[in-house]
Amino acid sequence: MTNWKDPEIQAIRDVLASGRPAPDQPPPTLEESRARLEAFGEMIPLPQGVRCGEATVGGVACQLLTPAAVQGERLVLYFHGGAYVAGNSRSHRPLGGQIAHTVRAACVLPDYRLGPENRFPAAVEDALAVYRAVIAERDPAQVIVAGDSAGGGLTLALALAVKQEGLPQPAGYYVISPWADLTQSSGTYVSKAETDPIIAKAAVDGSAADYLGGADPRQPLASPVFGDFSDLAPMLIQVGSEETLLGDSLKVAEVAGLARVDVRLEIWPEMIHVFQAFFFMSAAARRAISVAGAWMEERLGS
Amino acid sequence: MTNWKDPEIQAIRDVLASGRPAPDQPPPTLEESRARLEAFGEMIPLPQGVRCGEATVGGVACQLLTPAAVQGERLVLYFHGGAYVAGNSRSHRPLGGQIAHTVRAACVLPDYRLGPENRFPAAVEDALAVYRAVIAERDPAQVIVAGDSAGGGLTLALALAVKQEGLPQPAGYYVISPWADLTQSSGTYVSKAETDPIIAKAAVDGSAADYLGGADPRQPLASPVFGDFSDLAPMLIQVGSEETLLGDSLKVAEVAGLARVDVRLEIWPEMIHVFQAFFFMSAAARRAISVAGAWMEERLGS
Repeated sequence: MTNWKDPEIQAIRDVLASGRPAPDQPPPTLEESRARLEAFGEMIPLPQGVRCGEATVGGVACQLLTPAAVQGERLVLYFHGGAYVAGNSRSHRPLGGQIAHTVRAACVLPDYRLGPENRFPAAVEDALAVYRAVIAERDPAQVIVAGDSAGGGLTLALALAVKQEGLPQPAGYYVISPWADLTQSSGTYVSKAETDPIIAKAAVDGSAADYLGGADPRQPLASPVFGDFSDLAPMLIQVGSEETLLGDSLKVAEVAGLARVDVRLEIWPEMIHVFQAFFFMSAAARRAISVAGAWMEERLGS
Repeated sequence: MTNWKDPEIQAIRDVLASGRPAPDQPPPTLEESRARLEAFGEMIPLPQGVRCGEATVGGVACQLLTPAAVQGERLVLYFHGGAYVAGNSRSHRPLGGQIAHTVRAACVLPDYRLGPENRFPAAVEDALAVYRAVIAERDPAQVIVAGDSAGGGLTLALALAVKQEGLPQPAGYYVISPWADLTQSSGTYVSKAETDPIIAKAAVDGSAADYLGGADPRQPLASPVFGDFSDLAPMLIQVGSEETLLGDSLKVAEVAGLARVDVRLEIWPEMIHVFQAFFFMSAAARRAISVAGAWMEERLGS
């Protein structure tokens, strides 16, 4: 076992381990995984003063979060993670709420369609429909698009789709541990396999198949790292050093930077996949959200 | 010609072009390159209130810069660029002064030994001698080590040497467009050749040979990207999207992040090699130094 310098990361790892089936038990079914992720979201209180509601935006069911203090028209459009097959607006409401609270913005969390029931490109179509509806009603310069894991990949796919459709870009993209290469080509699937308590290649391969069906994973709207990032809005990527998905973040920074996108990549030592979701028990997670908040504030103007 | 969105980058490119010999003229000699770089430094005024002095630190001749307002014991140890064969404490005094002024720190600019007169590892030895002397007199937690280009590579080599020697790490490393791989293996030497007005692979190969003599470029103290970055202090890397050295920055972020270093990589769109040196004519350069200043302030505590 590694002796971590961070005082809280082991406790997070223990929480995760306690939720895993014993070695002699079968792996969780998709339904069980979905239920567990939703229960995680229901367990964590929202920041004080954040009001919740529901609405259909662009034909897609969404959660709406409204912090007590919202600065002007600011809005965070947040895409939850869950490998394109799990997660929903309830599982990721605490993280979305924490981000929205930090940046004093309203937050929309879409329940985009998931595989295997609804395969690629359903999720991207839903993301685009919500974005269209959002910018029909407010200045895109007051919108940040954000997401974690598959939701981070979906954020980047949306960025490419927005450009393709000739729509205006938002103020910026904040992506947390994005899953952006559905061919799983990154070397960190091997080099970080031992220290990543969440994401293993075999499971991700399965989720990719469930999402894509027979579709080519090298399509940019499925795997944004194969896309042309030129003319996209500024991008903040946060990732943990212990992630098998670290390579995806490095690749996103590379393709975006080569294409002249304003890129900031932050690699957080000892941190794990979407560690920000543990803001209620980790100072590093709170610091990461706070640093991202300052970045978003700068993009949105004051 | 590319139509740049940045309003000032073409003017910087014009300044650089005006200093280049015509196609039918011979390339500058090493003496001419050195003189031109020094003249650049002498041309640019220091920020108001910055006092200059000279001193020998750890046996190495240095410029000392003292801004009007210095916060406590803060010090920036700044290593100038110039491909390990050119540049000196006068050529990079304005950039060092601007950084020191921004972060309210004293600044030491060592005239470390250069090739081909003094080959590797003379520069690293000098850097280490200066660092030893600096931390003998003040809290390492109040010291930022910084540098650009070869000085950025030297900063990272020093970081490895400091660990090797069992010395305490500084508060952080701020590296600008570091030259950190003296084998020139990066793909951006080709993909950015057209848009980089400063660094071409053939010239860099020559400088590497002048610096290294027969030494193996894969030694970590020559090419830090081949080193073990574990346990190094936090690192901010800033690089321009139009640089042949962009790949070196990506590689540094990767090897440092994999080794659990706190890494922030910023890729500045349309910017060129060490664009921060043009702070007197570029808002982007001033913004980059200001963003770096905030990062350094956080590392140094307030």
